[in-house]
Amino acid sequence: MSQADDHVPVRRYDGRRFTHSDDQVALEAPLEIRLRRAADESSQSISITLRTPGHDAELALGFLVGEGLIRRPAEVQAWQVFAAGAGDAQGDAVELQLAAGVEPDLERLRRHFYATSSCGICGRASLEALSVLGHPPIDARGFSISATRLLALPAALAARQSGFAATGGLHATAVFDADGRLGEVREDVGRHNATDKVIGAALQAQQLPLAEQGLLFSGRVSFEILQKALMAGCPLVAAVGAPSSLAIQLAWEFGLTLVGFLRDGRFNIYANPDRIRD
Amino acid sequence: MSQADDHVPVRRYDGRRFTHSDDQVALEAPLEIRLRRAADESSQSISITLRTPGHDAELALGFLVGEGLIRRPAEVQAWQVFAAGAGDAQGDAVELQLAAGVEPDLERLRRHFYATSSCGICGRASLEALSVLGHPPIDARGFSISATRLLALPAALAARQSGFAATGGLHATAVFDADGRLGEVREDVGRHNATDKVIGAALQAQQLPLAEQGLLFSGRVSFEILQKALMAGCPLVAAVGAPSSLAIQLAWEFGLTLVGFLRDGRFNIYANPDRIRD
Repeated sequence: MSQADDHVPVRRYDGRRFTHSDDQVALEAPLEIRLRRAADESSQSISITLRTPGHDAELALGFLVGEGLIRRPAEVQAWQVFAAGAGDAQGDAVELQLAAGVEPDLERLRRHFYATSSCGICGRASLEALSVLGHPPIDARGFSISATRLLALPAALAARQSGFAATGGLHATAVFDADGRLGEVREDVGRHNATDKVIGAALQAQQLPLAEQGLLFSGRVSFEILQKALMAGCPLVAAVGAPSSLAIQLAWEFGLTLVGFLRDGRFNIYANPDRIRD
Repeated sequence: MSQADDHVPVRRYDGRRFTHSDDQVALEAPLEIRLRRAADESSQSISITLRTPGHDAELALGFLVGEGLIRRPAEVQAWQVFAAGAGDAQGDAVELQLAAGVEPDLERLRRHFYATSSCGICGRASLEALSVLGHPPIDARGFSISATRLLALPAALAARQSGFAATGGLHATAVFDADGRLGEVREDVGRHNATDKVIGAALQAQQLPLAEQGLLFSGRVSFEILQKALMAGCPLVAAVGAPSSLAIQLAWEFGLTLVGFLRDGRFNIYANPDRIRD
């Protein structure tokens, strides 16, 4: 369950000839997230995601935070991780049992989830829908980081992307503090999963909201990723890749600082630059 | 609607100092796909995706093909594209009207779509669920391509990735033939959307199934992308990036040839190598 890659036989072509070899590939497998309210007899399936196995409970917890269903670890009383084939489990699953009094509107969640082919947007059509979740803007004061420390982050992240180094097929998300120190790093075939895992770990460590930490992404940043950062209360998102137009719009609207193209000794600030010091 | 990028002001840091500048960013905006059966009075929302505006009808058509709902252009009688703000449209939308006798099981679709945070997997938990769609394996004969022609594809694709060149934030999908000639190319913030657009264009051009063409991807290949290629009847998938373990498994199971790391004058074949000639 914690292995992130697998060896497969490949036929390699180097421009001149074919050879037989083997290759480490990024693991991808379905995980079902199930939720049980204290008052309910049985659990309900709320999500099936294709993720890289490992840190599955963190993924489930972080997913709930991102959907605005929980904010504190005490809201989840217990969880159980099922491996495919155990009992009647058809695939890997995490079942979360909510504490008494925690009553998310699963029908609303169901309506939101209905009908999507996109990544995590889950049927929410617009920024207005997000405001419905009632998240306040990020406080403008507090967290800041120097440009020099920001520039050093990608190399620090690369040094800890063991799965990417082996497979070339994994995204990474990490937290970092104002001194530029990396905290937890998670890798996954899906950038939304890597993000859920990091946020789930922060929840378990009683570190939410992430008011004094930034989130670092190995790739691009879309609306969905910004939304997860916002729901975790994170003031600064830095990405090695490009941001989308909607990610920039969301960052301005909710007061997050958004940095893109953080690589090769340079970066661009797309929203709320005041948290980056010279 | 056809613009793929936008200019935004940025603060740039080059390692020594900050400057004010502007940057072209990849556009991301929600699109709702609505379906109306001939017998129905009104349409139903079947998907909301965050896509790069442009080629929206193709996206909607290709999405239906990928979900196994249609295979021939005649199955869709008409479509209408709505821009955000027009009438009661809250966002951009495409409404597809099915021909009489085309009766997809929308409740099954709804169940499949329910509860997902992943990319396009839409609640289908496993390879078994895909087999339920009843897609036959790809015929082993027919299409093949030489290693030399395969090696030339990434440069040809890069030359046509105008959106990526401008923004660094768009994925591309293209079709190519046995002579290594690129056909349609589509770019999008979501690789699944770029793929839907290419497949929708092929549907409109009466080119489905794609028995004599391959699909080329600018990035990584996951289960979801392989599934779309399979539903389009495509025998060969080639990716500049890494494949996931589940993509490889699906390729073997349904007889697709899967090429990864097609770049820098080399590539790896992960499944069914016989369609690549020396």
